Formats: sequence, C-alpha cells, structure tokens
Amino acid sequence: MSDIKWSQSEKKAARAVFDAALQRECAAILSRLKELATSAKTPQDMWAIEEYIAEQRRQIDSKYDFRYSQLIRVFGRLLRENWIEEEELQALSAEKLAWIQSIAML
Amino acid sequence: MSDIKWSQSEKKAARAVFDAALQRECAAILSRLKELATSAKTPQDMWAIEEYIAEQRRQIDSKYDFRYSQLIRVFGRLLRENWIEEEELQALSAEKLAWIQSIAML
Repeated sequence: MSDIKWSQSEKKAARAVFDAALQRECAAILSRLKELATSAKTPQDMWAIEEYIAEQRRQIDSKYDFRYSQLIRVFGRLLRENWIEEEELQALSAEKLAWIQSIAML
Repeated sequence: MSDIKWSQSEKKAARAVFDAALQRECAAILSRLKELATSAKTPQDMWAIEEYIAEQRRQIDSKYDFRYSQLIRVFGRLLRENWIEEEELQALSAEKLAWIQSIAML
C-alpha cells in the first residue's frame, strides 16, 4: 500500500482525523492517569503509574505514524480500536476506505 | 565508617528512623504527583509526570540504603534534607550522632 496516492484534500482530511484520534486517545490516557493518581496510596501505586504512562507513551509513539505509506494501516487500527468512526473517513476515496475497513476487521 | 559497630537496640532504632523517613519522603512525592496529575492538561504534562516519578524513584532507590556500612552517611543526608530530626536519633551512640551531624552539615 506504500504506492497509494493521496490528493491534497485527502491529505488535509487525513491529518484532521489523525489529530482528532490522537487527541481523544491522549485524553483517555490522561483521564485514567488522573484516576490512578487520585486513588494512589503507596509507593508501589506510584511506580505502577510510571509504568502505565511509559507503556501508553510507547504505544502512542508506535501507533501514530503519519507517513502516507502507513496511514491506511494506522486508520485501520484506529477504526478497530474505536478511536475513529467510519463517518470521519468520508473524504477519502472509496478504495482507501475499503482498505481501511478490511484492516479494521482483521 | 564501614567498621562501626551497631548494637541490637541501635539497629532496631535505626530501622524505625529509616522507615519513617522513607515513608515521609514517599508521601511527599505522592502528594506532588497528585498535584501534577490534577493540573495536567496535555500529553506533555503526562510525559513530564512520568519523568518526575522515574527521577524520584531513582533518587529513592539510591538514597535509602540500609546497609550498616552506609547508614551514617544515609542519616546524615536525611538530616540535611530535613527528612529526619536529630531527636529521632537519640537512641544512637554519641559518636554516631556526631558523625551524622557532621555529614548533615556538609
């Protein structure tokens, strides 16, 4: 899929969808972090929070790859994990959307 | 100072002081962590919290060394940093207390 062509309007739409998903997922991580911090009582709870954030950060860094050669795969995963909705991808070509849907169902 | 002898009663008192200081410092870190989490708004704030905890953990791990060969140095530092009070060290010999005080003033 690395030779897929992206029009200017698709690139712009893809960026908006990508950024929105990243923002949603970071907000969910932050919300969970706040819960963990609120209920933390022991040093072990603190070290667990550190590990939680570190793991989430690794996951975010590896998942959110905005190279056009990777975007179909990225959007497929985000759709599968419910960070984006199909309706947000309507600006993309039918072919791209089909690929994204097929990856989401893997 | 590695050949200092510790009586049984000194060992017991040292353990209590050591544990109390560790508990105080961890409570202070936890309190700060809760503040940081409460005010966190962005992903950068989260990554900063991760780094804060990691740094505090490294510091705790290196500072709190309960080997008798290290305790005078450890208590000297804890006294300097106000995690313990001189009154808590009264069960130790006058010689040990003097060493601890001199290290605290470094």
